[in-house]
Order: sequence, then structure tokens, then C-alpha cells
Amino acid sequence: MQRYFIYLAYDGTAYHGWQIQPNGASVQECLMKALSILLRREVEVVGAGRTDAGVHASLMVAHFDSTADRADRGWIMGANSQLPKDISIQWIKRMDSDFHARFKAIARRYRYVVYNAPRRPALLHKQVTHIHQSLNVAKMIEAAQKFEGTHNFETFRAAACQSNQPVRHVKHCRLTQHGAFLILDIQADGFLHHMVRNIMGCLLEIGQELYPVEHIDVMFAAEDRKAAGVTAPAGGLYFIQAYYPEQFDL
Amino acid sequence: MQRYFIYLAYDGTAYHGWQIQPNGASVQECLMKALSILLRREVEVVGAGRTDAGVHASLMVAHFDSTADRADRGWIMGANSQLPKDISIQWIKRMDSDFHARFKAIARRYRYVVYNAPRRPALLHKQVTHIHQSLNVAKMIEAAQKFEGTHNFETFRAAACQSNQPVRHVKHCRLTQHGAFLILDIQADGFLHHMVRNIMGCLLEIGQELYPVEHIDVMFAAEDRKAAGVTAPAGGLYFIQAYYPEQFDL
Repeated sequence: MQRYFIYLAYDGTAYHGWQIQPNGASVQECLMKALSILLRREVEVVGAGRTDAGVHASLMVAHFDSTADRADRGWIMGANSQLPKDISIQWIKRMDSDFHARFKAIARRYRYVVYNAPRRPALLHKQVTHIHQSLNVAKMIEAAQKFEGTHNFETFRAAACQSNQPVRHVKHCRLTQHGAFLILDIQADGFLHHMVRNIMGCLLEIGQELYPVEHIDVMFAAEDRKAAGVTAPAGGLYFIQAYYPEQFDL
Repeated sequence: MQRYFIYLAYDGTAYHGWQIQPNGASVQECLMKALSILLRREVEVVGAGRTDAGVHASLMVAHFDSTADRADRGWIMGANSQLPKDISIQWIKRMDSDFHARFKAIARRYRYVVYNAPRRPALLHKQVTHIHQSLNVAKMIEAAQKFEGTHNFETFRAAACQSNQPVRHVKHCRLTQHGAFLILDIQADGFLHHMVRNIMGCLLEIGQELYPVEHIDVMFAAEDRKAAGVTAPAGGLYFIQAYYPEQFDL
């Protein structure tokens, strides 16, 4: 049995999220179906992270096991031919069987894209979050850095979050401006349910000057979801990378 | 009666094109419906150009007439609230009634976006044209310029083209490379049916070295659609601008 790591991109618009579920299409299910057709037996696929409904990935990592042997190009072309157009495998790599896409990931990285302009966009309307109000971007840039470090993110996780502990180490949380686009780039050892979208929701409220940057300290101290604001929409969020120990050589 | 020019963007994926038609949704019909609801009477909308099914616009120009008077912001917000999310009015401007969005346009500009990479994209899969073969981009750049100038574009128009003459003046036709993306930027006094997509189809065949750059001269001389190659897909094409005489002050 050979373990394969795959790197894939998807547009999450049409999916109920990464994870397989009884009602509604998921990215994981599409991958499992495509690989099962290719291999003519049931294939389990494990992802590095779970994205919500409508969230995209420019590079998600996942693994599956197979006894079939074919060239990398054959794997990718074969699977992609069975996948819908909004999911695409980009690379494949043979790994030892103790290399696990989810449990061995030491960090994950997301980007959140805001389009800040008076008129809503038409192109990319499911791929960016439109904010028509003018935003105090300097305050948002300052605020983003307050999420860096080790914190209890209880205030910034969904009530439905199933993680057994809310402390996460955020290595990098920076907002940058590119014309009308604001991009949040955030890397952490792991993310709680809705964590990036709740952080982005907070940054957008700070940009609208609903409260000062320092109020983030009060929100953290509350350790209560009700102390934070709205969850930013799913469509602006992208899973962009999973990181593994060096011996993975990925 | 006041004439209004509007500038709008749309994602053409869900539409049978700009022009209203009996079967299937069109961008023009959506605009006419939205403005008719807003104004409580039937409104005619005239566009600067007609885009095919699946073709996008980052900036289409159109006009309509109304006796209603409201602030520009009110027009835009009101109409956008009645439009689907993949169509969005960006600006509005009051014009004299002899300023006609279609007949007064002196030039139009399109872009065509190719994503050239071994694996197909998932994000933007309806917004770019994927070519997996490696392309000789230098030849394509050279070839693009051969379309500049005044030519009989009979070879490069669809059999169904309704224009009564096939001569067009192409002011600018340049291909540029940006990483894995190739972008054709083309401006002409007017375009024939499928003209940009047929030119792009020819450039892609030159990129694949199916024939040399000089073969374009033979294709032009044939004055026959069968002398040229495939029509490039609609999803990579964007209407990006319409130009008017200076006195329009647009």
C-alpha cells in the first residue's frame, strides 16, 4: 500500500465545505468519488484542514492510499478527468504511510480577500467580500498584529467548534492593501471553527471605527464568542497552505 | 426625458450573452427588468457592444432614458439592489439625448486571458482559458501584432456574423505574459462576431507551432472562415472599454 499526498485547488462556491456530509456536495466526497472511479474500489481521502461552505483553496493538502501504481502525470490527469471543473489536483507525491495530511501538519495558512469600493463587484462576486463603507485601513493593519502570538481564541471560535481546547499559536497575522483589495494573511499551528472569519469580522469593525484597536484585549479577556462581532462571509476566504516537518520534504 | 450612460461590470458565466433573446437570460434583459422595477415603467437599454454567451465585462457602457430624477448614488444603489450579484452598475452619467452608447462608440477594447500551466485551474475556471500544452509565447507576441492595422477580417468572423462589411481597423493588438497568464489586449473601431476569439484561436495554434507566424497572411488573403482555426472559448474574454468622441467627456 502506497500513501499519496495530493495538492489541490478548489472553488468552494458550489460545496457545503471540505468535509463529507449526508446532505449536499463536499470537496472530500468529490475527490473520493473521482479516485474510487479511477481505482475501481473505495478510496478514503484525508485533508489537512476542513473548510466551511463557500470557502476556497488555492492549495489544500490531502492524502489517500492505493496499491495501484501509475506515473504521477497519470494519477493527476486520471483524477482530474473525473473531477468537476471547480476542483483540480495540481501535484502528487509518494510518502511513507506514517505521514498523515491532517495529524502531521504543523501549521496552516489562510488568506482573506476584501474588496473595498463604493460599488459592489460583479466579477469575483463569490471570491471576494465586498465592503462599501470606507475603512480605516491603518487601524486594521495595526489590529491584525494583535492576533499574533499564543492566545486563547475562545472569543473567536464558533459556538459549534468541536476542538477540545481553544489556545492557538498564530505565527503571522498581517493585513496588506493592494489598491481596492485588502488581504489578510494568517498562519497558525491550527485554526478553530470560524476563527479566521471571526478575526476578519473584528478587523472590519475596527476599520469601520466601531471600536478602537485596544478593544481586542477586552474581547480576548472575555473568552466568550458574544464579546466579538460578526463572522465575515465565507466567499473571501482561501486555504492557501499546510506545513509539515522538514523530513516530509514537501 | 434625460439620457443616462451607465458603466457596468458582469460575469457572463450564467448568461446567454449581452443581447436580449427569447430563450435564456441575458445581461440586457436583467438590466431592463431592474430599471423597469425601479422606474415602474418599461425601460429600453442599449449597449455599446454585444458579448457572446459566457463572455464577461469589466466595463460595458450602455444607455437608457428616463423622466425620473434622482441622485447618481440613488440610481446606482437602486438598480444594483434589483440586479443579480453577477451584474453591477459602477457609474452613471447624464448625457444629451443624441449621445448613443452603440452608434457613437468610436472604438471598443477587449482582453482575453489564457492560463498556461500543465494542470487545469479550479479557481477562475470560468474566467480564464486553460491551455496545458507549453506555448511558444515569443511567436504569439510576434503574431498578435500582425492583426494591427486595417484588414478585411472575413477569415476571422463567424459564419453567422450579421455585419454588412468585414473591414475593421485594429488600433492595438498585443499579447503580454504575466507568469502563467497570457493576456491579449485588443482595440478596434468595431469587432465582428467571434473576431477576438478567432484571433485568439489563431494565436494559440501559432503558440503550439501548428503553423508559422507568416501563415496569418495566407489566412487573411483567403477571406474565408475555413482558412482559420478554432474559436477560442468564451470564458477567457472580457469587454473592457468603449471609447467615445472627446465631446462626450466620458
